[in-house]
Amino acid sequence: MSRADIERAAQRFEGDYAHFIRRTPLWKLPGKALGVSNDEVWLKLEHLQASGSFKARGMLNRLLSNPIPASGVIVASGGNAGIATAAAAKELGVKCEVFVPTVCSPAKQQKLRELGAQVVVTGAVYAEALEACLARQKETGALLTHAYDQPEVVSGAGTIGKEIEEQGGAVPDAVLVSVGGGGLIAGIASWFEDRTRVIALEPELAPTLHRAREAREPVDVAVSGVASDSLGAKRIGAIAWDLTQRWVKESHLLPDEAIRNAQLKLWKDFKLVVEPAAALPLAALRNGIAKDAKRVCLVVCGANLDPATLG
Amino acid sequence: MSRADIERAAQRFEGDYAHFIRRTPLWKLPGKALGVSNDEVWLKLEHLQASGSFKARGMLNRLLSNPIPASGVIVASGGNAGIATAAAAKELGVKCEVFVPTVCSPAKQQKLRELGAQVVVTGAVYAEALEACLARQKETGALLTHAYDQPEVVSGAGTIGKEIEEQGGAVPDAVLVSVGGGGLIAGIASWFEDRTRVIALEPELAPTLHRAREAREPVDVAVSGVASDSLGAKRIGAIAWDLTQRWVKESHLLPDEAIRNAQLKLWKDFKLVVEPAAALPLAALRNGIAKDAKRVCLVVCGANLDPATLG
Repeated sequence: MSRADIERAAQRFEGDYAHFIRRTPLWKLPGKALGVSNDEVWLKLEHLQASGSFKARGMLNRLLSNPIPASGVIVASGGNAGIATAAAAKELGVKCEVFVPTVCSPAKQQKLRELGAQVVVTGAVYAEALEACLARQKETGALLTHAYDQPEVVSGAGTIGKEIEEQGGAVPDAVLVSVGGGGLIAGIASWFEDRTRVIALEPELAPTLHRAREAREPVDVAVSGVASDSLGAKRIGAIAWDLTQRWVKESHLLPDEAIRNAQLKLWKDFKLVVEPAAALPLAALRNGIAKDAKRVCLVVCGANLDPATLG
Repeated sequence: MSRADIERAAQRFEGDYAHFIRRTPLWKLPGKALGVSNDEVWLKLEHLQASGSFKARGMLNRLLSNPIPASGVIVASGGNAGIATAAAAKELGVKCEVFVPTVCSPAKQQKLRELGAQVVVTGAVYAEALEACLARQKETGALLTHAYDQPEVVSGAGTIGKEIEEQGGAVPDAVLVSVGGGGLIAGIASWFEDRTRVIALEPELAPTLHRAREAREPVDVAVSGVASDSLGAKRIGAIAWDLTQRWVKESHLLPDEAIRNAQLKLWKDFKLVVEPAAALPLAALRNGIAKDAKRVCLVVCGANLDPATLG
């Protein structure tokens, strides 16, 4: 995966799909506005992306890069990857099957159905839903999308890096990115390579990349906590592992309380409604991470939440 | 009031107060993304302004343009004007008294107190709170702010027009603006003068400017409905009347249902959490207003709401 793959993904989005994949705003604020000592804070408002998270980029890129059989596309996910796959399939007018475990909330299942997806509820946990999904895929030959561990998904996410650079008119001194399975940070770091510090952020309760770095190889970790519905991958993706080993020099863990406080601050003081996973960059900045970066970019990655939880 | 007043207000904001008054994002989308036939829709995300509405611009400009006595500032408002005055006073470190009627919700009173304001709850309706406020002002000599009918408040709001032009790199073919007392539209129309069509939008149930235009003079109107907490001025401001007579050629009314649907669409499809008053421009566009404008700008003006109301 290279910058050329990201350029190609961006070209795919800018043509016939500019009404679907949005060029989300880059909001430049003085650090003082956020109560931090950095000169400038750039908020990349990617939570305003189609499907309510950055994942629409990767999923549309995956679908546009491969032949789609009559059986359509298939995915196992009750979260942002499922919603993004269903939204991209709807945009292209192809069938979509989404496998979710029984713990997936009725509201999320309803959202998937509204997007035209066939929802299959099976298995007590995600691993079981995935197993059923893979068996079904073998049967139907549908195109499988993965939440983070496919090259087209990673290069789709990488287009965010390209936009930050274009909209900012410069490369920021640091870019703060939340990590679940690692698709987002792998894409962004592949765009910037060694031209900035891309900093990995995870909840203490979902330290997937952090533990892998300690073990020097991907390992399974236990995940829980306030952001686990979107950052709860148990093991870092193989592609993300390779790319972050190459380009990411820093990885930090954040307590749930700091994440929740940052989420509430983004609503109360900035009227941005974001899910906990999207608040890690601000939580990190407020904890002093990247405090020496003159210009720091925070990637605000998703807004699939019940707004009543902010009350 | 002229463009020069708006330029001066912008200068005040850009210097020492750039951390307080935000240059809010201008989000350009293809019309197709919003399901309308215009080529480009520009969303001016002014609901992300300090204090949660555009009113912070007018209030800070008022406070910076006048000597502030030791008794501080004073206002009668349980809504966005009160919050914005309290926020501006806090920023400048001066005292603030806010008079609200007994119908003002405990949540709003609490918000004002969090901003350091002295809240005086008096009178059953707004007119009685205003009367008490004016009597108190005579006693203390505090600087009075008005929600819309003061020149500095209008020119502060006018800086939004300047930003739209700068950020857009052009003058849009039409600008859609909600009208309560008229301060926002008066400021924006004064910036653009005859260089674009500034279009006035009101709820059918709060037709303050529309009825005045029919009567050819400001008249009192009955106000109610979904947006009346922020667009519920009973009579158009004198300054706004003069300026809109000069620069605004179109005024339209919208049913509450269209306003509420647009508010819900902004959340569901665009993850923007806005109060009903801020949804009138999208409601109008979806109803075919300004459909011949190639590039149309929607001013999204406020986000002071309970997010649970979007569920």
